[in-house]
Amino acid sequence: METYKRLFNLFEIELNKEIENISRRTPSNLYEPVAYTLNMGGKRIRPVLLLMAFDLFSPNYKKAIPAALAIELFHNFTLLHDDIMDKSVLRRNKKTVHIAYSENTAILSGDAMSILSYEYLSACETSNYREVLSLFNSTALKICEGQQLDMDFEKTNNVSVNDYLNMIGLKTAVLLAASLKLGGLIAETNHANCNNLYEFGYNLGMAFQLQDDLLDTFGNTENFGKNIGGDIVSNKKTFLMLNAFELAEKKQKEELLYLTSKNESTNDSKIKKVINLYNALNIEQITKQKIADYFTLAFSALANLDVENSKKEGLVDIANKMMNRNH
Amino acid sequence: METYKRLFNLFEIELNKEIENISRRTPSNLYEPVAYTLNMGGKRIRPVLLLMAFDLFSPNYKKAIPAALAIELFHNFTLLHDDIMDKSVLRRNKKTVHIAYSENTAILSGDAMSILSYEYLSACETSNYREVLSLFNSTALKICEGQQLDMDFEKTNNVSVNDYLNMIGLKTAVLLAASLKLGGLIAETNHANCNNLYEFGYNLGMAFQLQDDLLDTFGNTENFGKNIGGDIVSNKKTFLMLNAFELAEKKQKEELLYLTSKNESTNDSKIKKVINLYNALNIEQITKQKIADYFTLAFSALANLDVENSKKEGLVDIANKMMNRNH
Repeated sequence: METYKRLFNLFEIELNKEIENISRRTPSNLYEPVAYTLNMGGKRIRPVLLLMAFDLFSPNYKKAIPAALAIELFHNFTLLHDDIMDKSVLRRNKKTVHIAYSENTAILSGDAMSILSYEYLSACETSNYREVLSLFNSTALKICEGQQLDMDFEKTNNVSVNDYLNMIGLKTAVLLAASLKLGGLIAETNHANCNNLYEFGYNLGMAFQLQDDLLDTFGNTENFGKNIGGDIVSNKKTFLMLNAFELAEKKQKEELLYLTSKNESTNDSKIKKVINLYNALNIEQITKQKIADYFTLAFSALANLDVENSKKEGLVDIANKMMNRNH
Repeated sequence: METYKRLFNLFEIELNKEIENISRRTPSNLYEPVAYTLNMGGKRIRPVLLLMAFDLFSPNYKKAIPAALAIELFHNFTLLHDDIMDKSVLRRNKKTVHIAYSENTAILSGDAMSILSYEYLSACETSNYREVLSLFNSTALKICEGQQLDMDFEKTNNVSVNDYLNMIGLKTAVLLAASLKLGGLIAETNHANCNNLYEFGYNLGMAFQLQDDLLDTFGNTENFGKNIGGDIVSNKKTFLMLNAFELAEKKQKEELLYLTSKNESTNDSKIKKVINLYNALNIEQITKQKIADYFTLAFSALANLDVENSKKEGLVDIANKMMNRNH
């Protein structure tokens, strides 16, 4: 994790400077919640991936900082507005903005944050400027589309496994993909490299998201840090659940429908019964296989990158780290 | 109004095409409310001003269309989110988006609309591309700042006339100013012309907003189309009210405080008493003078524009039209 840590630390210095700048802007009621959100911390995975991609081709990381800041601000803006829509009370153990301040503040500060992200992006210096803007815009729209589909899916029983994969692709994977590709575009590497970076990020993002679904049901509580079975209790339409519905025979489907429409006497009993069905339908293995498939695609894109192998180690490390959360 | 009408009609054709394109995007739950908002109509004053500014220097209006669309989409995005924050139920006699759909839809579709505005802006072709983006970004942030100040002012009695002028400048005037300057930038005219266009728009916007305040109390109901005294009834901190507070002597101030903190037996009686105070303090004349001052600044900026006078007629017409709503 050498490369990740080094670039993470460099990014944090730049981000903290900008948080300072932002919190000095007025009116403070608009900008303080932006600083509050950015101060919540996090792994800064997207901007660091951008810097790592850039670092494959050029040592001058400062050139990629404006775009890295833009990505981090945009990502946090989407979380801020998603938290309003999902009525989430906590994020990273801190009150969400609409709870700590007000809903109006969360809407407007989020809007300002999104515009700030464009302000950082505009400061980016590269001959691929137009492509950078265009990728950022199309990615930003896709994230909105993913969030809309996620909300749509809550209200319908007509969601296929493929619909779900499309949704998580839009909501999560495209931003990882775009972050990496932006690094390549700003480093002005060739088209094929940029596209391989995108493919690496997209497939890694998909694998990561499915891993999240898997761990919620089949993870090791201690290392995963969440309670097992939360998705089952809340009837979330995960990759596991949707596969179960597609594979279930008539009787199993009836049981699943019963379990997901009525509340079992206790959550533990509900979790146990759904897991029994998952086991009967081989859901854990199917999910693991799908994750492995995406992971293979990610590594194949990485292998196709026209960069000496020693330089790819940072990305290999981070991909492995992301996928080994349950060990 | 020849120029205005001509460019309005051309803009409507382009906008309607884009509304068609947007409403074909999926998921429809995200994009349909965007089309709904754009279909509410309106005078399209900002994009048409942009096209008029461009038209001073170049007949090829198509070059300015992407930025004109960006401005109109961004403006409508701010209205959409403002309507949530202000809990407005109607806009242009149609249900606001958060009422017609849901609050979550209004938040997310607004976000998408703001990103779409950047997508249109990015399509803009000009050697001043960087300046175009930078002006758009800084203007967008200022509009958020203005909206925040407007909300802040509702919760405090410590608002000066200058605070108010600053707020309406940010919330309203900068977008008119930026629209005109964008027209100049895209036409690639000189720096001085771009700045004069900005000044013209800014001062016209200020005059227009103060005129709005004036007409709400001293307008002719028939032509103004709203009920007289609405601002007084809702204790709105307008230019008139804030001036009255600054100019009032001790006893008058006490009466104003009483009238604005407690509800009079009837609205008519409240309106009458506040207007009596306004008359005693010469508020109508003070406001008319301030409007005239801004109007003079606007026309002086227009006079300084290095363009033959005959070409300026469209802008002169629209400025006069905007300012003569009560005649």
